[in-house]
Amino acid sequence: MNSLDPDILAAFHRDDVKARIRQKGYALHVTGFLVSGDMACRTYAEYTRSRCEAVGLRFTLVSTDRDKVANLIRQANADQRVHGIFVYYPIFGDARDSEIKDLVDPHKDVEGLCAHWMRKLYANERFDDPGRLHKCLLPCTPLAVLKLLEETEAHSEMGMPFVGQTVSVFNRSDVVGKPLAYMLANDGALVYSFDIDGGVAITRDSAAREPVGRAQALRESGVVITAVPSRSFEKIRADELRPGAVCINVSSIQNFEDGAKEKAGLYIPRVGPVTVAMCLRNALRLFEDHHLDGRAGHAAL
Amino acid sequence: MNSLDPDILAAFHRDDVKARIRQKGYALHVTGFLVSGDMACRTYAEYTRSRCEAVGLRFTLVSTDRDKVANLIRQANADQRVHGIFVYYPIFGDARDSEIKDLVDPHKDVEGLCAHWMRKLYANERFDDPGRLHKCLLPCTPLAVLKLLEETEAHSEMGMPFVGQTVSVFNRSDVVGKPLAYMLANDGALVYSFDIDGGVAITRDSAAREPVGRAQALRESGVVITAVPSRSFEKIRADELRPGAVCINVSSIQNFEDGAKEKAGLYIPRVGPVTVAMCLRNALRLFEDHHLDGRAGHAAL
Repeated sequence: MNSLDPDILAAFHRDDVKARIRQKGYALHVTGFLVSGDMACRTYAEYTRSRCEAVGLRFTLVSTDRDKVANLIRQANADQRVHGIFVYYPIFGDARDSEIKDLVDPHKDVEGLCAHWMRKLYANERFDDPGRLHKCLLPCTPLAVLKLLEETEAHSEMGMPFVGQTVSVFNRSDVVGKPLAYMLANDGALVYSFDIDGGVAITRDSAAREPVGRAQALRESGVVITAVPSRSFEKIRADELRPGAVCINVSSIQNFEDGAKEKAGLYIPRVGPVTVAMCLRNALRLFEDHHLDGRAGHAAL
Repeated sequence: MNSLDPDILAAFHRDDVKARIRQKGYALHVTGFLVSGDMACRTYAEYTRSRCEAVGLRFTLVSTDRDKVANLIRQANADQRVHGIFVYYPIFGDARDSEIKDLVDPHKDVEGLCAHWMRKLYANERFDDPGRLHKCLLPCTPLAVLKLLEETEAHSEMGMPFVGQTVSVFNRSDVVGKPLAYMLANDGALVYSFDIDGGVAITRDSAAREPVGRAQALRESGVVITAVPSRSFEKIRADELRPGAVCINVSSIQNFEDGAKEKAGLYIPRVGPVTVAMCLRNALRLFEDHHLDGRAGHAAL
């Protein structure tokens, strides 16, 4: 099995952010909001704290309750001493989490998840301002997957990055699978996007969403990305996989059988460290674009 | 001044190559051919040796004469124990160096400079085989510049990487400036390509090569790349530069005045470490594509 350790790429991006913060002497402050008593959630919060502190960002973790979190986020939006915001989900574990997500000031949303950035993504707008000085943020996990794919043989070093590639994505959530499918299709790939109800084919040029079955999709795919946080998901088996396929598991639960990992041309077991590195990079970009002159983040929107 | 240390990116790629070589237990052997008594040339040869050895490649440096180097390269091409070849130029310092370059077996040409790879590049062929299993190599220095640009704000994270960007490239040599201009134009940029006789505009879609002056080109360019190894080059001045431009100096002689470096949005003083890291990556790719089964490199061409 060829595997790729995502922490090597994550360390590169952290080193880059760290050097730029040190060089400029920035005092950059990020706040994280944790509601869940869930252990995985708390572990992730502590991991983001350690990565922030490692690159020279000040980090404050606010542990609070479901009924207070919205107001605390609004206060952080208005607080000029807070430059970036993390929110650790799930909070309610239902549609209310989307509302919380959209409360975060886009210019403090280091995860790139609020409706402002999603609208820009789906409208294929690359800049946040008419002067084209400030680039739009992309959602952190799909961006981490793209950055990892750039290091693989599936990525073309010239022209459209994934032209000629077929990619299966298992997950069509608003924060991971759906934006990822759109981004890959926009980069030239034929994308088979799956959720619990089945698969559809997505391309850059066609509005049609033809249905596709799992067997055909996997047989054709040179890249397979899974982000299914459920033990009831039928794991990807070796016999379904194209030889040499690049396989990326985004879920905390492994979505590939051991035989499939062996058959893969390259297996990437997790993307979390790169996701967090992308958030650090976003925090620095938002700070330089919007907070250097002391304005509150929302003023320009 | 914002500067970017190319060694952070180079270290990432070296770490990746090192991990893959260790994981697979590859015994990979690279030979370098040095003719010049020139100190810079010898220093570069020793640098490539140290980087090869750091990632677990065996490296042999062959110091020889002008009249023997061609035969020694032919022998290395035929020697199944040699998997990669470096040649340190200048050898003759004239057109004969091009002939030497084209002697290197494409499947051992870790620098990606021989006519085989150049033809593939200009024909925009991405694969070296009809089965589309083996990707074409790109010339190492232009590729290093692209990889560095990917880390800057000039690069778009989705779609054509440099669409909407205007780039000036000072140098139109066959190994650096000309392929770089082609690659950037193919990635969506408007490229102003300069040599000693002046500038021309190059785009992906137009065959026309409209002349352009230096003042206009620099006024419009968000990215300026220089690779002019001559002290008679009129260095890029601050007053010529667009504020915030990304500036990359590829030459061993600095092509930017200090004031221009200060005015740049980001200044990258050299690309050498990334160039060599790309050669190491190429060596590994060629080994996995063509040498694992013990065939001589030329057999498949």
